[in-house]
Amino acid sequence: MLRILDKFVFYHIMKIKHLLLLTALAALLTGFIKNNENGRVFSVVSPDDSLVIRNIYSEALMSFESYENLKYLCKNIGGRLTGSANAETGVKWVYEKLKGMSLDNVYMQEFPVRNWVRGDKEYAYAESKKYGKKEFNVCALGTSIGTGVNGISGKIVEVKSFEELKKLGRENVEGKIVFFNQAADQKSYSTGYGYGSSVYQRVRGAVEGARYGAVGVVVRSATVCLDNNPHTGVMHYNDSIPKIPAIGISTLGADELEKMFNEDNDISFYFRTTCKQNDDVLSHNVIGEIKGSEKPEEVILVGGHLDSWDLGEGAHDDGTGVVQSMEVMRLLVKLGIKPKHTIRCVAFMDEEIDQKGGRYYAETTKNEKHIAAIETDGGGFVPHGFSFSGTPEQVAALKSYKEYFTPYWLHYFENGGGGVDISFLKNSGAALIGLVVDSQRYFDYHHSAADRFENVNRREMQLGAASLAGLIYLIDKYGL
Amino acid sequence: MLRILDKFVFYHIMKIKHLLLLTALAALLTGFIKNNENGRVFSVVSPDDSLVIRNIYSEALMSFESYENLKYLCKNIGGRLTGSANAETGVKWVYEKLKGMSLDNVYMQEFPVRNWVRGDKEYAYAESKKYGKKEFNVCALGTSIGTGVNGISGKIVEVKSFEELKKLGRENVEGKIVFFNQAADQKSYSTGYGYGSSVYQRVRGAVEGARYGAVGVVVRSATVCLDNNPHTGVMHYNDSIPKIPAIGISTLGADELEKMFNEDNDISFYFRTTCKQNDDVLSHNVIGEIKGSEKPEEVILVGGHLDSWDLGEGAHDDGTGVVQSMEVMRLLVKLGIKPKHTIRCVAFMDEEIDQKGGRYYAETTKNEKHIAAIETDGGGFVPHGFSFSGTPEQVAALKSYKEYFTPYWLHYFENGGGGVDISFLKNSGAALIGLVVDSQRYFDYHHSAADRFENVNRREMQLGAASLAGLIYLIDKYGL
Repeated sequence: MLRILDKFVFYHIMKIKHLLLLTALAALLTGFIKNNENGRVFSVVSPDDSLVIRNIYSEALMSFESYENLKYLCKNIGGRLTGSANAETGVKWVYEKLKGMSLDNVYMQEFPVRNWVRGDKEYAYAESKKYGKKEFNVCALGTSIGTGVNGISGKIVEVKSFEELKKLGRENVEGKIVFFNQAADQKSYSTGYGYGSSVYQRVRGAVEGARYGAVGVVVRSATVCLDNNPHTGVMHYNDSIPKIPAIGISTLGADELEKMFNEDNDISFYFRTTCKQNDDVLSHNVIGEIKGSEKPEEVILVGGHLDSWDLGEGAHDDGTGVVQSMEVMRLLVKLGIKPKHTIRCVAFMDEEIDQKGGRYYAETTKNEKHIAAIETDGGGFVPHGFSFSGTPEQVAALKSYKEYFTPYWLHYFENGGGGVDISFLKNSGAALIGLVVDSQRYFDYHHSAADRFENVNRREMQLGAASLAGLIYLIDKYGL
Repeated sequence: MLRILDKFVFYHIMKIKHLLLLTALAALLTGFIKNNENGRVFSVVSPDDSLVIRNIYSEALMSFESYENLKYLCKNIGGRLTGSANAETGVKWVYEKLKGMSLDNVYMQEFPVRNWVRGDKEYAYAESKKYGKKEFNVCALGTSIGTGVNGISGKIVEVKSFEELKKLGRENVEGKIVFFNQAADQKSYSTGYGYGSSVYQRVRGAVEGARYGAVGVVVRSATVCLDNNPHTGVMHYNDSIPKIPAIGISTLGADELEKMFNEDNDISFYFRTTCKQNDDVLSHNVIGEIKGSEKPEEVILVGGHLDSWDLGEGAHDDGTGVVQSMEVMRLLVKLGIKPKHTIRCVAFMDEEIDQKGGRYYAETTKNEKHIAAIETDGGGFVPHGFSFSGTPEQVAALKSYKEYFTPYWLHYFENGGGGVDISFLKNSGAALIGLVVDSQRYFDYHHSAADRFENVNRREMQLGAASLAGLIYLIDKYGL
């Protein structure tokens, strides 16, 4: 791309035009209020508010603090598996950081969590007459039982759906290792759709395999990307079906294993995992608050989950959500914004396994009034907008804020989910809101060794934090 | 992030809702036409068209061909500096690929281009009493003269604007090396704004330094990212001012040099560059066409530039634009779309230096009718929409297509620039259109060693190609 007089200048010009237009429009509409279809009154556009939001974005983009926080969380602490020592180091770090931020109140909530440990690096190979012995990079799926140090082996049987498995039946499956190899659907814009189209194999594959007598399962990673990293994630057992060990294999590894199987279907597979379930341990949510100046008893929550899987550094999932929530607090303090409602930043524990943090939070705050809860757990990617569930009045109010964010290219203000941790607040009366970010790269990293600090773009993450702070500013000012 | 019943499912649900809504709306409006304010008649929404566009996106996302093409261009050919042997290898490769695509016509245009060569790896160090000798990673700026094998040295004088340089005046600059160190502005959403705020130092720094007697200039890279890569790019001389050599230094290197200078302003700097200007050589645009079934004499152009800078692989700038334009042709052929107008894919040469390719194309086609020209040169990132310039009728028609792209999250359909190569068609009557993609990561890679294949996300690039094909389908069907 060319030099100063190049096509990028138009972005700048467009931005100025946008700002002028917005300001002119805002000036015309100052003080003007309208009734929406539900009769609720809310303001439309205010130039003062536009300026506050402009300042929020500028401050977020010019400060490196949230990025340095993410770096520390990823590089000095690393992956934060629920129940692990690392997770508790993360808890202490977030607590101390919040303590240093001139907030009104910083505290923890304590509750027991599962303590599943991965054990030694997993090992697996396939063997056939044609190919000889070929090793694969695999990982135990989260909460799986281990094989023990001797490992397990069996002939491979490949299926691409539970229907196929059912057709094969016990006579073709018993004593074997089922290789679940349905690839994620690529064709939707939403990578979450692709993930959703194949992740059932990870979650329920062990139960379905065991139902027909399999001794173990190997599961193609649930991701739209083709890579050499196995992607882990939680799996479930069923009390009425024997527990068998489950491992994940990378998408490229799965393609290779499939190729072997297609050319020679008499393939033995061996794998060894020493993961196990220890006794529950105590863990924590970490909370920091700015007390509301007018309605301190009414809470606007912003949060992400501090726990992560252990193969990477828990960067996009969900280190960014945590440091962005902390950044919201920093932005409010730094810009001298005095909220009317209490703004509460929550770093939830145990989202990935049992959601004990989200459940505990909802249970212990059920006598408090939450007006909104916002969660970020789609990675630190460029924001597109927000999705929300709530009363028609809440939704109408939230949609009315869209044009404040047009200069920052947020365009998606639609009904939808908020997030897993805040889902337990669904009967609280709060609007549940999710930051919607670009999903194209999320599953390149998700639950794998690639979920590292280096794969987070500073500005994309900062734009997300600014968007959260901007929305909270408006909700606080105008209510919901 | 959690399992199958997680918040990603809402994306899917929203997508279905979108589709249903769009289809319902489309059904209502089928055959309905409206007059826009200029009296031009065009159709509004058609379910058939929505389906065609859906198929275009699906095919683009499921095929790996454009990604494999980019890989070949980056890994087997590499950086394609105008005038270089690599650039001609790229020309031949694009020509052969287009020849293999069942198009109606594939040809080249030949014209002379500059032949600036970088020479040996550049070398530079600073030296001071306090720090001793410290080396820096630098690069010659594009089209700079070299220092010759002996290099040049001089005391460093740091400035952050041309005004500062002017204030220092000849008495403080003569015989020295000027260190231009204005950092890119971080605060705008647009990284192009940040680039534009500092790139003037690269383009005009040598002329301004020489005006006050400097013997060379060291220029902070024009980018919003902090990295260790020097970013190159074109610079200009002025015939009335002596030519002096110019190098780029990475942003982190510039911060380090600034720190040295702040603590000890008696710093000597040495650099050596052996770049030089050879005689012009012949180079080429490469063109492939699908002849229009009804109006073969009217052209819709889609293109990017095949040349690149030489420090990286020319991936985002602009390998992606080239393979996306080729992908548009593949999609039309594959989906059996028979255009009424001639669709012409152009891989332009020499965008980065003199734009000889764009100029030659415009000159040699001035008797042809172009109805639209679309350029992609902002990297292979997730698309936000299109910017366009044209008559009010053309702009209104283009804006009316926006809702076809809502399911793919395109939201930006605004007046603005098209691109450098097609800018020479500005008096042709064609609408000039640019694919607008997310800009946050662009300058992390731009003109540096980091502009590599690995830094392109397959799906982001494919979505761009699908967006181009979808818009071309609509323009072809409804005219402009």
